[in-house]
Amino acid sequence: MRQVIRLLSSRGVFLHQIGEIVYRLQKPYLPSLAMEQCINAVETVLAKREVQYAVYTGVALDMLAEQGGLPQPLQDIVAVDEPLYGLDEVLAMGITNIYGSIGITSFGYLDKEKPGVIGDLNKNKGSRVNTFLDDLVAGIAAAASAKLAHNAKDSKSQGDGTFQA
Amino acid sequence: MRQVIRLLSSRGVFLHQIGEIVYRLQKPYLPSLAMEQCINAVETVLAKREVQYAVYTGVALDMLAEQGGLPQPLQDIVAVDEPLYGLDEVLAMGITNIYGSIGITSFGYLDKEKPGVIGDLNKNKGSRVNTFLDDLVAGIAAAASAKLAHNAKDSKSQGDGTFQA
Amino acid sequence: MRQVIRLLSSRGVFLHQIGEIVYRLQKPYLPSLAMEQCINAVETVLAKREVQYAVYTGVALDMLAEQGGLPQPLQDIVAVDEPLYGLDEVLAMGITNIYGSIGITSFGYLDKEKPGVIGDLNKNKGSRVNTFLDDLVAGIAAAASAKLAHNAKDSKSQGDGTFQA
Amino acid sequence: MRQVIRLLSSRGVFLHQIGEIVYRLQKPYLPSLAMEQCINAVETVLAKREVQYAVYTGVALDMLAEQGGLPQPLQDIVAVDEPLYGLDEVLAMGITNIYGSIGITSFGYLDKEKPGVIGDLNKNKGSRVNTFLDDLVAGIAAAASAKLAHNAKDSKSQGDGTFQA
Repeated sequence: MRQVIRLLSSRGVFLHQIGEIVYRLQKPYLPSLAMEQCINAVETVLAKREVQYAVYTGVALDMLAEQGGLPQPLQDIVAVDEPLYGLDEVLAMGITNIYGSIGITSFGYLDKEKPGVIGDLNKNKGSRVNTFLDDLVAGIAAAASAKLAHNAKDSKSQGDGTFQA
Repeated sequence: MRQVIRLLSSRGVFLHQIGEIVYRLQKPYLPSLAMEQCINAVETVLAKREVQYAVYTGVALDMLAEQGGLPQPLQDIVAVDEPLYGLDEVLAMGITNIYGSIGITSFGYLDKEKPGVIGDLNKNKGSRVNTFLDDLVAGIAAAASAKLAHNAKDSKSQGDGTFQA
Repeated sequence: MRQVIRLLSSRGVFLHQIGEIVYRLQKPYLPSLAMEQCINAVETVLAKREVQYAVYTGVALDMLAEQGGLPQPLQDIVAVDEPLYGLDEVLAMGITNIYGSIGITSFGYLDKEKPGVIGDLNKNKGSRVNTFLDDLVAGIAAAASAKLAHNAKDSKSQGDGTFQA
Repeated sequence: MRQVIRLLSSRGVFLHQIGEIVYRLQKPYLPSLAMEQCINAVETVLAKREVQYAVYTGVALDMLAEQGGLPQPLQDIVAVDEPLYGLDEVLAMGITNIYGSIGITSFGYLDKEKPGVIGDLNKNKGSRVNTFLDDLVAGIAAAASAKLAHNAKDSKSQGDGTFQA
C-alpha cells in the first residue's frame, strides 16, 4: 500500500485530503464521525489490489500524456481532458464499486462538484495532466464513504439486534 | 414506447419533467439548446428496449412494495428505501450506460441533488413507494444528457472537419 | 447469512453445489485447492450485504413470476426468460464485481456453459421460474472464484516477498 | 472509423476475423445469418465513439508495455498479463455494454474459450504484448452479437406485430 500512497503523493494528493472529502460527505449522516475514521477508511480502500491497479493505470496515462508519450489520437484526448472520453470515469467506477453500487451517487456528485483536492487537480495547473487523477480521487473517496456507511449499519445491527439478514 | 410512457405517467412522471432536468443539466454547455431537443433525447432513450425493461422491473418492485406484495425481508427494504440497498442504483446505471460512461457523473449528481420531479418522487408522499422510480428518472435524464453531448460533438466535428477518428 | 442460505435452499440450491462449481473452475489454477476452501469462499461471498440484497431481489422476481404476480409486460418477460431481458445479468454482475472485474470472465463462461446446478435451474422444470436464480448462482460462484484467486496471490506474495505493491 | 480499423489491423486484427467469431456465436440462434451481416455489425460497433476510445486506450497500453515505456509496477503487470489485473476486462466491458447487459455472457465465454483470433492474440507470440487487445476483440465481438440479437428481435416484432412494448 505504501507504493500507491507514495504515487498519489508524488502527484500532489495526500491521504488527509481524501479523508477530508469523505468527512464532509458522511458527517451529515454519521454525527459522531471522526476524521481519523475517514482516513482509516481511505487506507482500507487503498489496500485493495484492484484499487491499486486502477490508480497505477490512470496515473500512468496522465504522466505519459504530460510527457507527450501517448500515441495519437489518445495523446490529444487525454491531454485536453476531452469530455466524452469516459475511460477516466470507467476506471474510477471500478474503485467505487468495491463496496457495492451505493457509492455511485457519491462518485457522480464529487465528480461534478469537485470539492477540495479534486477541484485543485481538475484545474490542471501549468503543464500537469490530471485527466484520470481527479476521477480516481473521487472514486476512492466515494468507496471510503460507502465503507463507512456499511460499518455504521453493521454496528447498529449488532447493537439492537433488529437486522435479520 | 407508448407503453413505457404510459407507465411513467401512471406513476406521476411526465416526459416534459424529465426534459426539464436534462435542459437544466446541459444548457450551461450547449447555449443554443432548446427544450424540444431535450424531450426528443428523452424519447430516444425510452425507445431502447433495455431502458424499457429496466423501467418495467423497477416500477413493478415499487408497486408491489406499495401493496405489501414482496416477500420479506425485501418488502421492508424496498418500502423504507433502505440506503444500503443499492439495486435501485444498479438498475438506473444500466440505463445511464447506454451512451457510454460519461453519464455516470450526471446520474450521481441528480441522485444526490434531486432536482425537479426527482425530488418530488423521493419524498414518497403518503403511501407511495418510489424507491426505484427516482433513480430510474435520474438514469433516463443522465442518458438523455449524454446523448445530447454526443450529438453536439458529432455536428461540430462534421462542421469544421477537425475530428479525425 | 442464514436467511439467504435458507432462501437459496428453498429454491433448490445448496452451498456444496455452488462450491462444486467453484472447485471445477479454480482447480486447474490452484492444484492444492480443497472443496472445503471453495465452500468457505462461497460463504464469504454470501456474508456480504449487497450480495444478499441481490439474491432477495432476484429470487422475489422469480417467485412472483411463478405465481403470476408481476404486472404486465414484466410477467411474460420474466416467466419465459426472454433472452434480451438482461436484468438478470445486471443483478448477477453486481455480485460478481465485489472482488473486482476479474470475475466477469468466469461469470460469462458459467452463464453460457451452465455446469452443475446452474444447468438444472435453467431447465425451468415444470412450473418453476428460475430466470434470475441461475444467473445469481453463476455470479456467486464467479465471485467466490475471484476471492480464491486473490487469496492465492496474497499468500504467495507474503511467502516469497516478491510482490511490491 | 477508418482510424480504429487501421489501428486494429496494425496489431494483427482484421474485421473479417472478428466477424467470424460473431458468426460462430450467433449462427445457432439465427439460422439465416450471413457472414456479411456479422461484419456489418462489427462495423456498427466500431463506429461508436466510446468503443474507439476504449480501443485507443487499451492498444496504447499494450504498445507502451511492448516498448518498456510504462512506469513501474504497471510495466511488469501489463507485460506479463497478470491474471488479477482486471483493467483489460473493465475496458472491454465498456464496449460490451453499449447494447445492454446481454453481451456480458458472450464476452465472458469468448474471454475464457478464446476462439479464432482471440486465441492467437493471447499467445503473445515473441515480443508482442496483447494484454488488452484480446479482451477488446472479445468485447467488440460480444457487442456485435448483442446488436444482431436486438435486430432479429426487432424485425420479428415488426413482422408479426406481437411485441407490445
